[in-house]
Amino acid sequence: MNATPIFKKVALIGFGLIGGSIARAARAQGLAGEIVTTAHSAKTRARVAELGIVDRVAETNAEAVRDADLVILCIPVGACGPVAREIAPHLKAGAIVSDVGSVKGAVVRDMAPHLPASAHFVPAHPVAGTEHSGPDSGFAELFINRWCILTPPQGTDPSAVDRLRAFWTRLGARVEIMTPDHHDMVLAITSHLPHLIAYTIVGTADELGQVTSSEVINFSAGGFRDFTRIAASDPTMWRDVFLANKDAVLEMLGTFNEDLSKLTRAIRRGDGEALFEHFTRTRAIRRGIVDIGQDSAAPDFGRPLANLTKEPE
Amino acid sequence: MNATPIFKKVALIGFGLIGGSIARAARAQGLAGEIVTTAHSAKTRARVAELGIVDRVAETNAEAVRDADLVILCIPVGACGPVAREIAPHLKAGAIVSDVGSVKGAVVRDMAPHLPASAHFVPAHPVAGTEHSGPDSGFAELFINRWCILTPPQGTDPSAVDRLRAFWTRLGARVEIMTPDHHDMVLAITSHLPHLIAYTIVGTADELGQVTSSEVINFSAGGFRDFTRIAASDPTMWRDVFLANKDAVLEMLGTFNEDLSKLTRAIRRGDGEALFEHFTRTRAIRRGIVDIGQDSAAPDFGRPLANLTKEPE
Repeated sequence: MNATPIFKKVALIGFGLIGGSIARAARAQGLAGEIVTTAHSAKTRARVAELGIVDRVAETNAEAVRDADLVILCIPVGACGPVAREIAPHLKAGAIVSDVGSVKGAVVRDMAPHLPASAHFVPAHPVAGTEHSGPDSGFAELFINRWCILTPPQGTDPSAVDRLRAFWTRLGARVEIMTPDHHDMVLAITSHLPHLIAYTIVGTADELGQVTSSEVINFSAGGFRDFTRIAASDPTMWRDVFLANKDAVLEMLGTFNEDLSKLTRAIRRGDGEALFEHFTRTRAIRRGIVDIGQDSAAPDFGRPLANLTKEPE
Repeated sequence: MNATPIFKKVALIGFGLIGGSIARAARAQGLAGEIVTTAHSAKTRARVAELGIVDRVAETNAEAVRDADLVILCIPVGACGPVAREIAPHLKAGAIVSDVGSVKGAVVRDMAPHLPASAHFVPAHPVAGTEHSGPDSGFAELFINRWCILTPPQGTDPSAVDRLRAFWTRLGARVEIMTPDHHDMVLAITSHLPHLIAYTIVGTADELGQVTSSEVINFSAGGFRDFTRIAASDPTMWRDVFLANKDAVLEMLGTFNEDLSKLTRAIRRGDGEALFEHFTRTRAIRRGIVDIGQDSAAPDFGRPLANLTKEPE
């Protein structure tokens, strides 16, 4: 705790993967004089108290935000509107209100009307995650070298944006500013569509007559398992994402379907050249992602290797 | 080299990710008295000689297979027929001929007619890989705890199957036996369809007007990057896979498209219940894969974590 706190009191509403990681990282970095958390379920609140990561666990949202300089909603996108309405009367004048939702247009639409003019609303989206959820799943390093996108509505006090930027930077993230609509388009292709596709194919595999589930599971190392990780993400969060970013997702899906038809036609016609050309082009994109450090170049994502033992037992 | 060799001489035709990994693992385990390798390109042959992993680099396929007790074709599926025809006159009587192709029906169809009755044909498919290719990409641990599927044609000498099974077991793999057709159906869903989908979506992202490539690359940690790894796999190998396993891939694609339409409709109609139900079901499949050790349960596939540093420089 030898670093300079950026906020005297930070309130985190929700303590899943993201909320729990913010709490751990903010504490490790000494970014808050006090961290207060609350959560919807009594079971989660009890577990957070047990973990001993935060200074205090509040029983209600209203109690959590009282006197807080920074309030972050770490809850599914669909819950943001009602919670904004609930906390609005209890916000300190000058408080920064933010969130971590994967959709920004709907969050701005749902939250902004409830918030008092004396609060600074700076929506945020840390682009980071794992397939785990719940109060035990967070870790302080989650945001390191990951992007956090801020989408402040026009007219937001720049100094509030700067303070939130400083907070996320100290959590390890790289901060970018965008409009909510552009954010939703970018994330539709980089995150929402991949999740939808992964959820679909994992479901398809689960329903086949000719191939058993245990065969699917056994032979998943051929590519399928990479889809199962993202298809194991939190169901409530993802339901809300697709409902809230419907238009952009449906638009990307349209383009994806056209491209899939093109490749399907190439397979049906035995057009090896078209396939080869496409497969070569996609390889270059991977290289770009590894080059800028958004993924590991280690074979197999750096999954740990077992050892060969001479002579089997 | 203190273990008992299973074969006096092993010939590997092709030295990419799979051939190179077999060579490294077979050497580490002392499974062959001598390992001879060849490769289509002079550049690869020179590099293999330089690496010093095998006992000898042959200039031609004919020379490589001479006197070999086990010959493994580690080349794209489309090249297996012509190479079988080329090596057939040079095979030692009693030699086991195998391959590592991701499609088995087409390989059996293309290779079997050329092979002499005195050779034992035992097609194989190690279900393991990374996104890297070329002579430097292999490593001895690649097959550990991964499946290797053998698809011996009816009437194959069981002792030849047993020897190849012993070889793969000592490379670390778990061996399963299937018919070629069933293999192709299982792999269509666990490997070929996932690759096709990944290749498609990465291509889609590359072509968008509204979102730039650098935005796609920057924000890929939201899910997209998991697709780019498999869409960076070897283009020649994958072109051949789709051409060779066309029927099964098209069949799986049909089911996938129906399922995608169902989820698309749920999004369009705002049917949150249908989405939630689907996303909950797919989570269970992931658990199955982690439980049987075909993937890591570490968050984010065990991608290495950076460290937080207090006070930015």
